[in-house]
Amino acid sequence: MNRALSIRSNKKESNTPSSGRRGFGLSSLRGAAQPELSKKLFKLIKSENILVQSYEAAGKERISIASQLSDWGEATNDDAVSDISDKVGVLLSELGEQEDLYAHNLDDSRAILKAIRNTEKSVQPSRNHKAKIADEIAKLKSKEPESARLVTLEQELVRAEAENLVAEAQLTNITRQKLKEAYAAEFAATIERAEKQIILARHGRRVLNLLDDSPVVPGDVRGAWEHSNQARQILNDAEDDLKDWQPELGDVSSNANLDHASLSQHQHQRQQSMETSAETDAGMTDAGMIAGEGTTHGGSHRSSGSSVVTGVQQNYASSEVPQSVAA
Amino acid sequence: MNRALSIRSNKKESNTPSSGRRGFGLSSLRGAAQPELSKKLFKLIKSENILVQSYEAAGKERISIASQLSDWGEATNDDAVSDISDKVGVLLSELGEQEDLYAHNLDDSRAILKAIRNTEKSVQPSRNHKAKIADEIAKLKSKEPESARLVTLEQELVRAEAENLVAEAQLTNITRQKLKEAYAAEFAATIERAEKQIILARHGRRVLNLLDDSPVVPGDVRGAWEHSNQARQILNDAEDDLKDWQPELGDVSSNANLDHASLSQHQHQRQQSMETSAETDAGMTDAGMIAGEGTTHGGSHRSSGSSVVTGVQQNYASSEVPQSVAA
Repeated sequence: MNRALSIRSNKKESNTPSSGRRGFGLSSLRGAAQPELSKKLFKLIKSENILVQSYEAAGKERISIASQLSDWGEATNDDAVSDISDKVGVLLSELGEQEDLYAHNLDDSRAILKAIRNTEKSVQPSRNHKAKIADEIAKLKSKEPESARLVTLEQELVRAEAENLVAEAQLTNITRQKLKEAYAAEFAATIERAEKQIILARHGRRVLNLLDDSPVVPGDVRGAWEHSNQARQILNDAEDDLKDWQPELGDVSSNANLDHASLSQHQHQRQQSMETSAETDAGMTDAGMIAGEGTTHGGSHRSSGSSVVTGVQQNYASSEVPQSVAA
Repeated sequence: MNRALSIRSNKKESNTPSSGRRGFGLSSLRGAAQPELSKKLFKLIKSENILVQSYEAAGKERISIASQLSDWGEATNDDAVSDISDKVGVLLSELGEQEDLYAHNLDDSRAILKAIRNTEKSVQPSRNHKAKIADEIAKLKSKEPESARLVTLEQELVRAEAENLVAEAQLTNITRQKLKEAYAAEFAATIERAEKQIILARHGRRVLNLLDDSPVVPGDVRGAWEHSNQARQILNDAEDDLKDWQPELGDVSSNANLDHASLSQHQHQRQQSMETSAETDAGMTDAGMIAGEGTTHGGSHRSSGSSVVTGVQQNYASSEVPQSVAA
């Protein structure tokens, strides 16, 4: 692993669609329809799918090769080669099954990443909505500083900012939790495949050792095959070892769902601060209130406290804020 | 591995091309041009190529995903996620490199199998040639038992049988030696990939453990990222562990090239028996000689003693016996 300690691409990618180094053909159109925020992860999840398919293909091919090897061995009419090729075939076939299991585990890990992508997708309209209202207010203030619409817009902005604060909290919570979960699962799957395949490969080499490859001279007849019981025993050993296999992983700990106690306490404090500012909420009219709302109204969607943790409400932003607003 | 202890396909495949379960498209025409003897291995070697390509694709995709993950992490503007995703990306990228190395090792193992296939291919004409002459003799004996051509044909048959004996010895020697060699290499490659990927995945899980995924409530700010040195140290550890990696394999022993001593002795004995029968060789005319030639003339291609071991002369059968004779 003689490489730099970062693999980040140094060239800052511009946001034009042409900057994508990978051609997606038709599906790149769907990628382009993604909000900017979720585009990278959208592509990554597509790439993970190609990875999953590669391993599925490898597993399938491995199993086919195993069967072909066994059939070839039988056709040699050499009892030793026939038995060895069949036993090696059984082990290769199980290598293929493990490859297929790995593909499925990668697919599960990939599904976890989708939670981040979906949250990113739902946060983008919330950001856009907030920016749009702030923009409208700025324009209106310079053109019609006395407009009665300013009051309504500023109320809207406070609501939009409060909503966005919740969305951003959901995003960071989901991002960290799911990033950790997805790759912990992916590494665990890598270790499982590796440990099981080591078992199979080591027994495979034992099987091969039963085959006498001393050369014969023309006309000599090979001795009878005497190791069929041993070969069978090796398969039994391999099966037992696989059955006994247990994951021995250091935990990847998660606090994502452990912090209810401190969170409740937090919420309690916020609730108190909410109550002191409740009446101001109703009639907020000045710019000071808007600027200060970041800390004051942070907890205004109080019910979302739990959704931050569970991600249950992660789509509400997009349902509350129509796409047309974001355009 | 809860499976039968054999994976042999029980249905006896007929030798018609339609019995192949796998469609090869255009390349199946090339397969059909293979002599019967090498057809199964020809197909197996093609399947191994698909396997190699699957792992190459997986390695390439893994490296691409690693880079995408790092870039995505940077775009989150969360220092912790940015650093973690970059470090995880480095480890994933190396997982991909190991996958690519595995593909190349499989390809090397596949090349070893080709030696068997080539020998099979060269033995087929020798078998056909022998059978054809025996057939001609049988026909001639029933039609013209006094034909002077019988003498010539019977001489030809003795030569063809001697040549075929050598070819069959070459086939069994190459088959056993290369089967053992190819799959010992394949299992060794599987163990190498597995052990190195376990190193990478375990360090990957250590990196993930640095990421605090405790949920924040809206408006909270995440603490500063304090683990960048630790993350970097984990990559150093992974690199050191990979450098220190050594294969720890029980040998798959081969006698393929160790038996020169006993082989020479063998040849010496054969040479003596050759000398006692030398004069009969010159004027052999009776059916008894032909029937008995299996043991007497086994060593007649004496120079092929070494080619049995090395496979150097494995193609001589097809060069001595034109394809037209085999048809």
